[in-house]
Amino acid sequence: MIQKLINKIVEKDAPIVVGLDPTLKFIPRFILDECYEEYGANLKGAAEAVWLFNKAIVDATYDLIPAVKPQIAMYEQFGTDGVEVFKRTVDYCKSKGLVVIGDVKRGDIGSTSAAYAVGHLGTVEIEGKTFMPFDEDFATVNPYLGTDGVKPFVDVCNANDRGIFVLVKTSNPSSGEFQDRIIDGKPLYEHVADKVNEWGSTSMDGEYSNVGAVVGATYPEQGEILRKKMPKVYILVPGYGAQGGKGADLVHFFNKDGLGAIINSSRGIIAAYQNEKYAEFTDKNFADASRRAVLDMKADIKSAM
Amino acid sequence: MIQKLINKIVEKDAPIVVGLDPTLKFIPRFILDECYEEYGANLKGAAEAVWLFNKAIVDATYDLIPAVKPQIAMYEQFGTDGVEVFKRTVDYCKSKGLVVIGDVKRGDIGSTSAAYAVGHLGTVEIEGKTFMPFDEDFATVNPYLGTDGVKPFVDVCNANDRGIFVLVKTSNPSSGEFQDRIIDGKPLYEHVADKVNEWGSTSMDGEYSNVGAVVGATYPEQGEILRKKMPKVYILVPGYGAQGGKGADLVHFFNKDGLGAIINSSRGIIAAYQNEKYAEFTDKNFADASRRAVLDMKADIKSAM
Repeated sequence: MIQKLINKIVEKDAPIVVGLDPTLKFIPRFILDECYEEYGANLKGAAEAVWLFNKAIVDATYDLIPAVKPQIAMYEQFGTDGVEVFKRTVDYCKSKGLVVIGDVKRGDIGSTSAAYAVGHLGTVEIEGKTFMPFDEDFATVNPYLGTDGVKPFVDVCNANDRGIFVLVKTSNPSSGEFQDRIIDGKPLYEHVADKVNEWGSTSMDGEYSNVGAVVGATYPEQGEILRKKMPKVYILVPGYGAQGGKGADLVHFFNKDGLGAIINSSRGIIAAYQNEKYAEFTDKNFADASRRAVLDMKADIKSAM
Repeated sequence: MIQKLINKIVEKDAPIVVGLDPTLKFIPRFILDECYEEYGANLKGAAEAVWLFNKAIVDATYDLIPAVKPQIAMYEQFGTDGVEVFKRTVDYCKSKGLVVIGDVKRGDIGSTSAAYAVGHLGTVEIEGKTFMPFDEDFATVNPYLGTDGVKPFVDVCNANDRGIFVLVKTSNPSSGEFQDRIIDGKPLYEHVADKVNEWGSTSMDGEYSNVGAVVGATYPEQGEILRKKMPKVYILVPGYGAQGGKGADLVHFFNKDGLGAIINSSRGIIAAYQNEKYAEFTDKNFADASRRAVLDMKADIKSAM
């Protein structure tokens, strides 16, 4: 699966992923009104507004980008209606040729991780027939429970040609609280990186592994160290844009082959029309603003590299 | 909310929680057949079988127990139909007076954790009306991202009188891979425990905090240390029964007041009818076997204490 993602990145000449992390305050009033009128001002109406918002942004950007990363929390906040729209979004993005990275950050004890893995990336067998419940291409995974919490995901990746990105050094301000603590002379995130190398060695797909890592753009120095430490590991880099990561910070997340990293922007793209920089766009053409923001992000990363 | 759980534990004289973690192989054939016939042999049919299975077990045990702990992975594995049954299970258990601990192990960067927190424990406001999307009483939370990943859950607990259990030392075999690593002279899980104390101090509810901890029954020595280290923290103890934890191992998870811990059993209760020990029960009265297993578990824990 990582090779499929790389091919799309090369084809679109864009190592970027658009984070589909909608909140109600990003959604233009006319979409909310339309959905509340049709479905009611309730969880269903809100979820349907998320769907229309997502669809417009995907329609306006899919030719420019290799991948999207829906953050499932933003859908779970609307209950089962939201989860239904998460699934609809996954399916729609795949129908537009996009690679879908489900930002689900799951991770549990072995048998439970296995259930998450088949649910999000694999297949479930019912009376001899095979079903793909959520059918994402990649999922993000939390490593706190250790190998037996991650291995079931790797097994499902191997069985179904899928991939994962394991949290190594996250983009948030307090990520260092545990992740930076020194163990045997190096920070915890480097120990996790060692394990990512180990887990990934069993799931190679060309030059890179289906087991990737998450390293925040907000920590460029750690990014440089982790890039060197995990040469065959693709790095998913959140934190660009709204969280403070800049194009110039991203250079060291890439390998010399120009590959090895994919940069996520969420708010910076999907809520671009609310940004002063894109004041020429109104809420009616919010998706055009998102397209412009994608082009600007591509240019920013290109110029930095 | 922790006081509500404690009151239920005292009332039922049972510091136990039944893990509603159904897999298809636990569900009797006659239920599967009924649901596949009505809904099709598909994800919907499987999810509806989970529902009937859960409902029968809840009906047969709710008078004996204070709480249930549905593991959401086991529902997500059936896609959106599964998540719908998760929600139906939460609602049904609450209607039977049970405290519901959503075993969701969520955790993300701040704004995303906030979405999970309102989705699972809090309220979402839509056009001035308030909705409770999943409406669990407690949720389990993964601490790998640090304070700003946990704090939004604590805020929602305070706003809505709910609780969380933060993963400290998990029950699985490889939990030590990262959690046991020594930092400044003590294992990572003790550092996490220090933070649980800190987070919990802002959400006291009587003698205990709404911020609890997860410590596996499979690690009784660590349980004893953590019990002393977190005197005001309720400990959710998975790993009893099928994972190997025994009644005698559990003593040190409790405080001297006989409170402070709640022991989970999943397979041992819900799949009791498949256990040789309960061979007198057939698949037709699987729920009666679960009731017997609950009574046996209560007796086992009582005798150990």
